[in-house]
Amino acid sequence: LKISNPIQKISFIGSGNVSTHLAVAFKMKGFNIAEVYSPNLMHAEQFCVLTGGQAVENLSDIDTDTDLILIAVPDDKIEEVFHKLPVKKGIIAHTSGFTSIKVFSGSENYGVFYPLQTFTKGKTLDFSDVPFCIEANNPTTENRLQALAGTVSDHVLLINSEDRKYLHLAAVMVNNFANHIYSIADDILQTKHIDFKLLLPLIRETANKMYYLKPGNSQTGPAHRNDISTLEDHEKMLNNWPEYKKLYHLITTQIIKKYNG
Amino acid sequence: LKISNPIQKISFIGSGNVSTHLAVAFKMKGFNIAEVYSPNLMHAEQFCVLTGGQAVENLSDIDTDTDLILIAVPDDKIEEVFHKLPVKKGIIAHTSGFTSIKVFSGSENYGVFYPLQTFTKGKTLDFSDVPFCIEANNPTTENRLQALAGTVSDHVLLINSEDRKYLHLAAVMVNNFANHIYSIADDILQTKHIDFKLLLPLIRETANKMYYLKPGNSQTGPAHRNDISTLEDHEKMLNNWPEYKKLYHLITTQIIKKYNG
Repeated sequence: LKISNPIQKISFIGSGNVSTHLAVAFKMKGFNIAEVYSPNLMHAEQFCVLTGGQAVENLSDIDTDTDLILIAVPDDKIEEVFHKLPVKKGIIAHTSGFTSIKVFSGSENYGVFYPLQTFTKGKTLDFSDVPFCIEANNPTTENRLQALAGTVSDHVLLINSEDRKYLHLAAVMVNNFANHIYSIADDILQTKHIDFKLLLPLIRETANKMYYLKPGNSQTGPAHRNDISTLEDHEKMLNNWPEYKKLYHLITTQIIKKYNG
Repeated sequence: LKISNPIQKISFIGSGNVSTHLAVAFKMKGFNIAEVYSPNLMHAEQFCVLTGGQAVENLSDIDTDTDLILIAVPDDKIEEVFHKLPVKKGIIAHTSGFTSIKVFSGSENYGVFYPLQTFTKGKTLDFSDVPFCIEANNPTTENRLQALAGTVSDHVLLINSEDRKYLHLAAVMVNNFANHIYSIADDILQTKHIDFKLLLPLIRETANKMYYLKPGNSQTGPAHRNDISTLEDHEKMLNNWPEYKKLYHLITTQIIKKYNG
């Protein structure tokens, strides 16, 4: 996307994983990281070591004469942070999957810049296949945010706040819920002194399979084939973990129902 | 592992995914696939097109003068299949994570040959990082099975039937349960006409993260940060899917409890 007034100068509110990974990616593409705010000034300073730019101690001191202010803070802080910022000259956008674009109502140019990915401290990420979900309150802002996302990713899409909420819910499930299940597996194996690492190739293949098969067409296992004797035995093995047993029972019941009528 | 009497000739009982993928991998390493039995003769014949060897219509016709007969059938069929085989001269082993080695009691040389991985029809798999869990009723058989697994994999381990059952339970969780969660996400997105493929980079990164971080140290999301307002909103969004809502509630409750006391 070629546009006449591309975003060049970006400031960040928040110094967490999303913010840091985005800033580093943009810095590497030659963007100017102007200012960084964190409630913890030292965090903002550490951030600037990586990205250049100026650490700012108070939100009211943010220089809004920049092309874009990206707010990457927990959902319940976005509105509060927004209202503490001085009058906005550039674009203001947040990186949340869940929060509506309406949180910025009344501002001039605003939008959403949601990278659909999980970011881990210390683990570099290739953004090229990360979907960037863009929304804006006018076409110019939309184009500018799309063009910005397009400098780091090949998957930029427009999606409205309502649909984005469902995408975020689905993302919470495949990321946070899958991770919870991994952690249960780890808890169980630890009591038997079995290395969780043994599961890693299986975990990876289960994920990679999705590039070939829809999940509804790749379900396997004892619940899928309604193998009651294995299921009962598994539940007995979970007697020491009543919470995990409950989850085992609920999920297997759902799988049986889904695939065996 | 160098041994004096390596397995060279292998027959397969069952022509499903595990069986086919193993046979193809061994064939490529120069092993002789002798016979293949399937209750459906045509399946056994198709199998032999890939691997060579002879399709066999009746279990009682299997030539047991082979180094290894690998039984790769559903758990509840292993014992039945075993008892229908003629007197066994070579090693008899099954590929199950769940079934005890004791199922072969009374035989001379037997064991377990469990590849801890999910196998998909039509998707070639690199076995090199697949853990092979070996168990046998005597040291010679143990060595021979270990050596065989070592020809295709760098991760061969000895594990007894009791521990293997827990490993299998954990495998069912990280594979089948994670896949069920993917399918729920797909169901939700379909009703909103959002492409499930958007989640694939997230799904893959969530899996790959495990190579860097233990799952208990990489939990994130609204439940992890006890963000009640997002959780309540998500549950409302699931009102049309009472079963999925129930699962959402149970998992988020467990995550909150685990990480927020």
